[in-house]
Amino acid sequence: MEGAKETSSELSQTPQTTTMMIPDAGDERETRTAKGLSQFSQTLQTITASSAPETSVKVADDKLPERVQWVLNAPEPPGLWSRLQNGISETLENMFRCLEQHRMSRTLESIFPILSWGKLYNKKLFRNDFLAGLTLASLCIPQSIGYATLAKLHPQYGLYTSVVPPLLYAILGTSREIAIGPVAVVSLLLSSMIQKLEDPAENPVSYTGLVITVTFFAGVFQAAFGVFRLGFLVDFLSHAAIVGFMAGAAIMIGLQQLKGLLGITNFTNKTDIISVIKSVWRSVHNSWNPFNFILGCSFLSFILITKFLGQRKKKLFWLSTVAPLISVILSTLIVFLTRADKHGVKIVKHIKSGLNPISIHQLQFTGEHTAEAAKIGLVVAIVALTEALAVGRSFASVKGYHLDGNKEMVAMGVMNIAGSLTSCYVATGSFSRTAVNFSAGCETVVSNIVMAVTVIISLELFTRLLYFTPIAILASIILSALPGLIDLNEAYNIWKLDKLDFFACVGAFFGVLFASVEIGLLVAVGMSFAKILLSTIQTGTETLGRIPGTDIFVDINQYPVAVEIPGVLVTRTKSALLCFANANVIKERIMQVATRKQEVDAKENADGRIQLVVFDMSNLMNIDTTALSSLEELHKNLAEKDIEFAITNPRWQVIHKLRMANIVKNIGRRVFLTVGEAIDACLIAKMA
Amino acid sequence: MEGAKETSSELSQTPQTTTMMIPDAGDERETRTAKGLSQFSQTLQTITASSAPETSVKVADDKLPERVQWVLNAPEPPGLWSRLQNGISETLENMFRCLEQHRMSRTLESIFPILSWGKLYNKKLFRNDFLAGLTLASLCIPQSIGYATLAKLHPQYGLYTSVVPPLLYAILGTSREIAIGPVAVVSLLLSSMIQKLEDPAENPVSYTGLVITVTFFAGVFQAAFGVFRLGFLVDFLSHAAIVGFMAGAAIMIGLQQLKGLLGITNFTNKTDIISVIKSVWRSVHNSWNPFNFILGCSFLSFILITKFLGQRKKKLFWLSTVAPLISVILSTLIVFLTRADKHGVKIVKHIKSGLNPISIHQLQFTGEHTAEAAKIGLVVAIVALTEALAVGRSFASVKGYHLDGNKEMVAMGVMNIAGSLTSCYVATGSFSRTAVNFSAGCETVVSNIVMAVTVIISLELFTRLLYFTPIAILASIILSALPGLIDLNEAYNIWKLDKLDFFACVGAFFGVLFASVEIGLLVAVGMSFAKILLSTIQTGTETLGRIPGTDIFVDINQYPVAVEIPGVLVTRTKSALLCFANANVIKERIMQVATRKQEVDAKENADGRIQLVVFDMSNLMNIDTTALSSLEELHKNLAEKDIEFAITNPRWQVIHKLRMANIVKNIGRRVFLTVGEAIDACLIAKMA
Repeated sequence: MEGAKETSSELSQTPQTTTMMIPDAGDERETRTAKGLSQFSQTLQTITASSAPETSVKVADDKLPERVQWVLNAPEPPGLWSRLQNGISETLENMFRCLEQHRMSRTLESIFPILSWGKLYNKKLFRNDFLAGLTLASLCIPQSIGYATLAKLHPQYGLYTSVVPPLLYAILGTSREIAIGPVAVVSLLLSSMIQKLEDPAENPVSYTGLVITVTFFAGVFQAAFGVFRLGFLVDFLSHAAIVGFMAGAAIMIGLQQLKGLLGITNFTNKTDIISVIKSVWRSVHNSWNPFNFILGCSFLSFILITKFLGQRKKKLFWLSTVAPLISVILSTLIVFLTRADKHGVKIVKHIKSGLNPISIHQLQFTGEHTAEAAKIGLVVAIVALTEALAVGRSFASVKGYHLDGNKEMVAMGVMNIAGSLTSCYVATGSFSRTAVNFSAGCETVVSNIVMAVTVIISLELFTRLLYFTPIAILASIILSALPGLIDLNEAYNIWKLDKLDFFACVGAFFGVLFASVEIGLLVAVGMSFAKILLSTIQTGTETLGRIPGTDIFVDINQYPVAVEIPGVLVTRTKSALLCFANANVIKERIMQVATRKQEVDAKENADGRIQLVVFDMSNLMNIDTTALSSLEELHKNLAEKDIEFAITNPRWQVIHKLRMANIVKNIGRRVFLTVGEAIDACLIAKMA
Repeated sequence: MEGAKETSSELSQTPQTTTMMIPDAGDERETRTAKGLSQFSQTLQTITASSAPETSVKVADDKLPERVQWVLNAPEPPGLWSRLQNGISETLENMFRCLEQHRMSRTLESIFPILSWGKLYNKKLFRNDFLAGLTLASLCIPQSIGYATLAKLHPQYGLYTSVVPPLLYAILGTSREIAIGPVAVVSLLLSSMIQKLEDPAENPVSYTGLVITVTFFAGVFQAAFGVFRLGFLVDFLSHAAIVGFMAGAAIMIGLQQLKGLLGITNFTNKTDIISVIKSVWRSVHNSWNPFNFILGCSFLSFILITKFLGQRKKKLFWLSTVAPLISVILSTLIVFLTRADKHGVKIVKHIKSGLNPISIHQLQFTGEHTAEAAKIGLVVAIVALTEALAVGRSFASVKGYHLDGNKEMVAMGVMNIAGSLTSCYVATGSFSRTAVNFSAGCETVVSNIVMAVTVIISLELFTRLLYFTPIAILASIILSALPGLIDLNEAYNIWKLDKLDFFACVGAFFGVLFASVEIGLLVAVGMSFAKILLSTIQTGTETLGRIPGTDIFVDINQYPVAVEIPGVLVTRTKSALLCFANANVIKERIMQVATRKQEVDAKENADGRIQLVVFDMSNLMNIDTTALSSLEELHKNLAEKDIEFAITNPRWQVIHKLRMANIVKNIGRRVFLTVGEAIDACLIAKMA
């Protein structure tokens, strides 16, 4: 046993015997041990104890080959402060580049894109946009009312939100197909998070005020992201996580529509699937009126059937887009004529008519919930931006133009800020409505203007017609839009491509279903980052071999043609970071492989044992203090077994730290540019 | 403006015009858009839509050079399931290797190292160990009582903890210098976390039972880590974070000793610095007896002076080690003779004599706090292991032998489990006591046995003598051990080597001071991992140039000799992961650099514009679905500007995914082994 052998040979040593690390046994020993010297300290103390670190001294040793001198004499990489300064100045430079390069008129055009394409507008384009706008409006009026109810607001707020934001987006935005308005997921997110602060049933006025305040904060955050080019924050929701999150949210929204479909009065406020199913079960057993359900289901079937037919035959596409409006009209007539509301069918009742009232007085900047509202605003801002950018980018790529993400974010931000001042809540682009817009033949964002104008006319003249509209119809219209949010095909593709990505997807899905929407989102973000972390702290190593006839060393598993060099172990870490989380295990793994190969080779060939370990650092991003210590230990342990150690191709930050910690000196300056050089130099030195 | 130009050229296109991505305009368009096709879906759908992915088809195109074939025909890397299986079988293999390779007696020796070195024991070793053990005991008796009070337990529990754990460690452990017993940081951690569940003042019995239950769980976790070789979990506290955490904990412990030094009765239970200082202020102004303070301070000065002298002169070392014992004896005499306890000096009073009582009945496995206790046990297990392994490893490296981390963990676990059954709380190795042990000349772990026996004798015979020991003395003994925990030198070294590491250190320090010990620990771990995350999602790119006379391409900033190739941009990401968090920004950055260089080169030289972008992927660990999509976009955007695109040296997982997503095909199979080949091939093709 290793321990026993060492014990027997060292037990005879007196405590005064020291290794080469501690110069003077007596006093030094007490001094250092009294301070509790750790292994790291030994490494790090050499920085202050020895002469100035090598970074200030150019290595001009003629005995060292030229290439090694290049490696060792690399200039000092920028420190943390200068990198921060660079980052900030780059951002400012980007921000002001458009002002520097463009003339004033072009600047106005870049801020208000409508001025640029507006010049080229003509009648034909307007005809297509007009038709698309009407189609949009026919879908959007019932949907907006339904989404407002989902957000636990009065129905007219949905209509307000389809007026002001689209108009502002038309002036500032660059996507040509996107359809702006309230969306299902954001409405659910708002109600789910804000009802924890204020109960919408007990305090509807302050609840509404909070929603509007959150909208204001969301707009501010979105505009700030655009102005300061913080768009990358939106990227923090990985695609797989979004797929899972959307699917979960769609199911939650669908379950909440059961309230409307079944005509339930008392419904749980909780958003997890167990509570909702319990609530439905209770209501169904207590008091249930079948008329809501019949009405809702029949028109839901109608809408779904027309959708299906529209996908099959192009000509019937028009039918599928007006189906929601037809359902609303027909069902309102039915209820009006039969006075079904007296038989238990729940109806919308009074929708306040007239345009958007100013809502500045409803903003709550000094209440107790303001900090919470800001936090919710940030979350909603990111989710809304994610959806809008995804929609905008995918349709832009279909049409073949480039969408400027930062401009879009500024447009979204301004439209939500303005919306919060005019009784709107958070609006963004929705997939289903944009798809309808696109298929209806929209050319530019004027279709949104047409839609907004139509909604204005409806608000002024037609709200009374919606008195008898059954809530079940709104529920069925929302339900018909949900299958688009659940993309099973996508989930399958993710499973095929990357299993860990799939787990993030599934985690987000179940998080939304069984906990809450916010927790589902948190799980989505958390799993996305956990995946990054796991791949960075992995502890695998790869063995490299030479491609015959070349000087190129590659992974022998990836390239079966590669051949290992007998007597040499060329190794590389799978991870790109040698840090506290994996340095120790990697060190032990390399030792294991080197000594195991030693045993194997020794059995086959007396001279076949490993004589040299070459550590290829070409893929290492960085190395921390713990890893520096592990490297020194590795060198020491290998030396005890009479195995040489060399490092090749370290990158900038890595070579800088290796020199700062004097590891280069301690391993005898065996740092080379290529693996071939390292092998030649070390084996030649060994034979000499 | 780019947008305007595109708009004018495309506004004339009817909606039916499509890009090359969508085969049939009409039906396909409605189908795909109706499903809300996202950009990612377009990429991913090609997997299922097109023929079988390329991984199953070997590329045997003779037109492709041999090397490119090697790159493209790499065998399929192991999937997630097979990697999991490998990991588990490797762990099991490691676990049973000692049973396979060694005979039964050697297996017993490996489990009980005492059997191996016990054979070689002799009188001389015993003499040194005996002296070291007595020295240890003289320090450890007052310290243990003080630490037990820190853990808010009755004093005798500290003495119990210095009996059973050291004895068990001597049988199972492999470190020869470590001194086992209660330690300050763990005692603080225990009291800080457990007092939230039970108040030690109101329910001392159930509080003690909880402490013992936590000890049991900690032991179980530690043993499990050792058996299942989960030692890497302990590595998750980076060195810098530990330095900060220890320093903060030392200051907190010091402040809590003010209670003993000043003789305060009512002390806050909170562990943050503001509450403690407030509590001290209040007590000092209300009722303060100066005798405690005078007694404590004078002996504290005495101990510190002897320590200082002992560091300077080797001969006076003995004085510094027995100083605590002398202080206890002298102060007890003083209080006994002057009956100072009647004048307000707080004394220890009655310490229950007799050996460790069995405490199985005190374990709470069915109470309300059991789950919490298990959680606390896990945290304490990791902190205790971290300290013990750090101590053991650093002294083992000084002496020159190798410590088996997993065996140590099993030894710690068993000793704590046994301790929990015999009224001990969590014991581990402490730096200060191990340093004393080492400097006192210990040879083997027998010094721990000697210490334990001495404590047993004291428990049986001498506890009555400690009746009049002032608490202020215990406080000063603890205070004298604290400077060893605050390593300013180390912190300075960390600052010099890695600024971000230093922030983790400082964050942990302030977390402990201003929030609580647990939060400080959480901040330590969190910042360590945040640092990893930040370096992995960084968005920088590096430009590579050729070293003259070679075929090697290196970072032009790191190697000033390297020369860029005119007309070619060879780029590499700083990060090793192309994922959702950075893919988009990196893509835009590469586009920016390629087009900016284009402008710069064009001004200088009409033919100097970039014609080729080579993306060197030799450092990329992995690539996710979002990044695959960004790569396709990059290729498309570059093609629009008439710039070629090539990829070089992808690693195993990366080339596999590139082929699965058909990106290799989409970029015209421009995947090469080296940058040189890529440049030659693409420029030749361009000229032809």
